[in-house]
Amino acid sequence: MPVSPITLYFDFSSPYAYLASTQIEALAARHQRSVEWVPVLLGPVFAVTGSKLPVQQPLKAEYMARDLPRSARFLGVPYQHPQPFPVPTQQAARVVLALQRAQSPLAVEWIHKVYESYFVHGRDISQMPTLHAIGAGMRLEAAQIDAWCAEPALKEQLRASVERGIQAGMCGAPYFVVDGEPFWGVDRLPQIERWLQGRF
Amino acid sequence: MPVSPITLYFDFSSPYAYLASTQIEALAARHQRSVEWVPVLLGPVFAVTGSKLPVQQPLKAEYMARDLPRSARFLGVPYQHPQPFPVPTQQAARVVLALQRAQSPLAVEWIHKVYESYFVHGRDISQMPTLHAIGAGMRLEAAQIDAWCAEPALKEQLRASVERGIQAGMCGAPYFVVDGEPFWGVDRLPQIERWLQGRF
Repeated sequence: MPVSPITLYFDFSSPYAYLASTQIEALAARHQRSVEWVPVLLGPVFAVTGSKLPVQQPLKAEYMARDLPRSARFLGVPYQHPQPFPVPTQQAARVVLALQRAQSPLAVEWIHKVYESYFVHGRDISQMPTLHAIGAGMRLEAAQIDAWCAEPALKEQLRASVERGIQAGMCGAPYFVVDGEPFWGVDRLPQIERWLQGRF
Repeated sequence: MPVSPITLYFDFSSPYAYLASTQIEALAARHQRSVEWVPVLLGPVFAVTGSKLPVQQPLKAEYMARDLPRSARFLGVPYQHPQPFPVPTQQAARVVLALQRAQSPLAVEWIHKVYESYFVHGRDISQMPTLHAIGAGMRLEAAQIDAWCAEPALKEQLRASVERGIQAGMCGAPYFVVDGEPFWGVDRLPQIERWLQGRF
């Protein structure tokens, strides 16, 4: 029986999804799984749950300011809270979809580089020059990136990805589905690991 | 230097706080710490954060229905989602405060029994007969419980506990403070453990 991948729904503006992005491939590899990266936008998700962004909620915003750098240290990865935060991420997401469509290994590299650019180096990933600079390091031409970001088929595919996430029950990011079982949050990685060792 | 306790703000209606209540004493003991149990009410907290109860949010409610029993299995503790849910918990909380005022060891026993009554046996802990039955198993008289629940000083003290939690940044339950550092959620227990091993 072929094993299914770990599906990860992520938004480039989610710091907890960034943290998860630094861990999930090693976790999957330990269990002979691959990772299916599905870029989404959290705005439409929060519209369904009816919740404000955590950063817009009193108490939660202050808590996150403590919890995020501590959670990064806990996982042993770099983190600098970016400003502005959050930012629109549909352009960066469309490039993921374009690279995935081409079955390019650059898709995963792009994901890590965009996250690093935003949550480590504090660059505004909603701005095209930032995306061009990331692409330049990967031999992707700026004009190509611009064309993907404007392509109606990719815009439609991103909307479909968001809808797929909502249908899968995504209530926030990162949101994982492993053999049909949903896991929400980077703090669920230990449960995912145990799930892969044998359902519990 | 005397070590400070682990402060745990909890609401009897929070299933994640129930899960935390089953773990925190052993964790604290591993690090020669005690636990300071502070009963609060989540309603006023959510009024500050502006969020609805998770169970009232589409997608989150469905997710919690999967996540809660799985998280309980992950921790190796029993869990049955109760109906009705959530329920008012101020009466059960006032009894905690009364027992703590008397410096009675029954305070912690009461906390565990109330949680077990609700999240394992599905009894409605907002109802006085349920609290009387819990008390009977601990040699607490029903009339005494009734008197505590109606006592103005305890009502005021519960309000003060809620205010203290909000001042401490409580954005949900369980909410822990360890040497001034805030931790939110039963999924932060591993971070608390590492924090106690040496700040990171």
